[in-house]
Amino acid sequence: MPFWDKLEDLLPLNIISYSQEEKYVYRTDSTKFNGDPDIIINVTNQKEVIIAVNFAAKNDIPVIPRGAGSGMSGGAVPIKGGIVLNFEKMNQILKIDKKKRIAYVQPGVVVSDLQDKVKELGLYYPPDPSSNKVATIGGTVAENAGGLHCVRYGVTSRYVKGLKFVDSKGYLYSTGIYNNKYLPGASLLVGSEGTLGVITEIALELLEEPILKDTFLTYHESFMDAVNTVIKIKKTDIDPSVMEIIDSNSLKAVTQFKDINLKTGTDTVLIIQLDSNLLTDLLDRSSKLENLFKKLNILGYKKAESSLEAEDIWSLRRAISSSIKRISPNKLNEDISIPISEFPRIVEIVRNIENKYGLKIVIYGHAGDGNLHINILYDRNNKSETDNTIFAAEDIFKNTVQLGGSITGEHGIGLSKKNFLSLQYSKNEIGFMKKLKKAFDPALIINPDKIFNVQKDN
Amino acid sequence: MPFWDKLEDLLPLNIISYSQEEKYVYRTDSTKFNGDPDIIINVTNQKEVIIAVNFAAKNDIPVIPRGAGSGMSGGAVPIKGGIVLNFEKMNQILKIDKKKRIAYVQPGVVVSDLQDKVKELGLYYPPDPSSNKVATIGGTVAENAGGLHCVRYGVTSRYVKGLKFVDSKGYLYSTGIYNNKYLPGASLLVGSEGTLGVITEIALELLEEPILKDTFLTYHESFMDAVNTVIKIKKTDIDPSVMEIIDSNSLKAVTQFKDINLKTGTDTVLIIQLDSNLLTDLLDRSSKLENLFKKLNILGYKKAESSLEAEDIWSLRRAISSSIKRISPNKLNEDISIPISEFPRIVEIVRNIENKYGLKIVIYGHAGDGNLHINILYDRNNKSETDNTIFAAEDIFKNTVQLGGSITGEHGIGLSKKNFLSLQYSKNEIGFMKKLKKAFDPALIINPDKIFNVQKDN
Repeated sequence: MPFWDKLEDLLPLNIISYSQEEKYVYRTDSTKFNGDPDIIINVTNQKEVIIAVNFAAKNDIPVIPRGAGSGMSGGAVPIKGGIVLNFEKMNQILKIDKKKRIAYVQPGVVVSDLQDKVKELGLYYPPDPSSNKVATIGGTVAENAGGLHCVRYGVTSRYVKGLKFVDSKGYLYSTGIYNNKYLPGASLLVGSEGTLGVITEIALELLEEPILKDTFLTYHESFMDAVNTVIKIKKTDIDPSVMEIIDSNSLKAVTQFKDINLKTGTDTVLIIQLDSNLLTDLLDRSSKLENLFKKLNILGYKKAESSLEAEDIWSLRRAISSSIKRISPNKLNEDISIPISEFPRIVEIVRNIENKYGLKIVIYGHAGDGNLHINILYDRNNKSETDNTIFAAEDIFKNTVQLGGSITGEHGIGLSKKNFLSLQYSKNEIGFMKKLKKAFDPALIINPDKIFNVQKDN
Repeated sequence: MPFWDKLEDLLPLNIISYSQEEKYVYRTDSTKFNGDPDIIINVTNQKEVIIAVNFAAKNDIPVIPRGAGSGMSGGAVPIKGGIVLNFEKMNQILKIDKKKRIAYVQPGVVVSDLQDKVKELGLYYPPDPSSNKVATIGGTVAENAGGLHCVRYGVTSRYVKGLKFVDSKGYLYSTGIYNNKYLPGASLLVGSEGTLGVITEIALELLEEPILKDTFLTYHESFMDAVNTVIKIKKTDIDPSVMEIIDSNSLKAVTQFKDINLKTGTDTVLIIQLDSNLLTDLLDRSSKLENLFKKLNILGYKKAESSLEAEDIWSLRRAISSSIKRISPNKLNEDISIPISEFPRIVEIVRNIENKYGLKIVIYGHAGDGNLHINILYDRNNKSETDNTIFAAEDIFKNTVQLGGSITGEHGIGLSKKNFLSLQYSKNEIGFMKKLKKAFDPALIINPDKIFNVQKDN
């Protein structure tokens, strides 16, 4: 490896790997996409990141920042080779300022590790994608992830109060709370899918932990009935922190592996949680919710009377993804975001698409936030089923955009939705985004060819 | 005017003006800076803006968007000539969606006109720079203005939920709430001082109007004593919506023209306002505040017992700017933003600078928000005083940045602080901002040479 020798002079040998085994691991993420990295650098501090990016800039080599590799859109896949910057070892919670309620963390910190740590101090970091026991803060910042609680608490961008990042030349910038300095454009790194710069440290706002919670499981005769319940709740000031919808196909998948008590006639369920720090406030909103259930004449509901019962309700939600994996060789998990008023329409459309292509489609997700996970089940060894899955996904995206929705809620465009970007954005709008990409990264070395392909200026 | 003939074919004649009178009016704003516009276009709708910008792009002519011309940093001054796009006639409140609490407005709407209109509906638009009876929404969005109430309610960017804007080629973009579409980078237009694109419509979030208010005037023996009171209040949950500080020089200026009852020994006053929609909440926080006053042993305070008395307190604040103008031929009004913990230090420094240069410096502003207006009084006809004023301003800026502050709170960089930008930002950071400017406006025609000078790429 004569070329890479130079890098060995600049960085500790033990963080550099060319081994076939590591290259194999880091060739992909949680998607079907594959790359062929030249080298993996297991960075342990900011200086190493600067050196690596600077080396890449001087030699015109792609750099792909990577967290846990749990991404759902191929964002961390090294499709053009180059350097995979693996942040798994840059996983220190550097400081938690309890008074100012700010956590300073390295990008490789696992989301749930931060959440557990701040909980010990009576604090709360809300963004919680289902992958939070694996996903890193860096990855969730890059994708601007949401999660179960974002209906009340918002998505990741709401919590980012400062960033340190390395630009495409290897220069380090500190912004926001790090030096009370607003650097216009720095906030664009949040949600940029790792394409504008390499984040090396993040300052996150924390909330006071809501210590009181009421958890409900509601039973509905139809998906529409559940959706209508969500719409009605949204019109009140009940303000739930969670509103998850789980359709009949999801329920069927889960009940194959897990005993669940459902009221006879249940087609769809909702998991609804309220939280607060004030007992009177929680009691007031909970009783409003129960009154609404009665008025809406839903099939029934269960209110958890203990944390054990609440845990039981949650185990249903958590079992979905793994249960689906067990009943189907493959699934295409497409997350869309759509105004709640259009939920009935998109679900009708998805059911028609399901029939048209003879596929099984499972719907669940963060109903309160308009973010639905639509999983198309298929067998990759069955050519026509695979083709139909792709056609079905495209049909769903087209309809989503027509209804005023977005083709991604929280997974990002990455590689998996590149072909669909033009459904949602006009040529001018994509041109606008490409200009921004080129302003940040004129040599096009930072996670290249994600979201869209860009041509270099001559 | 053979060249401009072409524009007369494209736009209604009655909106185009070459008259010396209009050119004279639109050559400046509220600063000492001057330009020499080629033409004024009094736009009345979005189409005309698109045509004008497109014409400018094709002919490589500067375009300077302008609201009321009340800007304090030269942002609307046509220093390179070209087209002044005057938005004063694009002043329609297009729609107020009471249920969703969103106002859709054209850029030329005067801030207080919008505030009055939404108030009739029980709603509230908080950003209120002192110029709100003149300044336009477009101007306040361009400068990301704050105002008296931003200590509790935040600055303009918090309320912008959607924009329509024309890019440097004349293409129109609709973003945010206008089509539920997040366009990365569009939010950078807020606070960009009109340098990235031309805004043609704005969707603003409104709040419920707080109907209950308590207003206090507090008397302090020294500026430091008042600052300490602000710091102490900030550490509680009293959460005032206004905390204005007014120093002895300001008070002296005002009392020359207006009778004001001040407790003997008063050097500095604070105006503090609490607001709420819940009587119990207001009573609770008001009594906490009064208890704190007692504990702090301040010189005294007055609580307005009627809206007439509150109005009387407010008239003091409103009289400052005009009173200063009457006692001094010229003033350099520099707004800085600085962490509240550094207030005592910056004030000490300003007083030293005052002595060093033999100048009179008046300090007042949004203490709760860390935004101070530092007015250096001088006579432009006195050369050495004018020079000293500029030296003093530079000294103040240097110290502000060293204490972790910013050289502008809400007035912007524009022309007036261009020379000081490098005090606050590194060469790399300014380079980063210039790249963004060029990504938005490669031909450098949109409000050119504001904030910094940029060279065209070859």
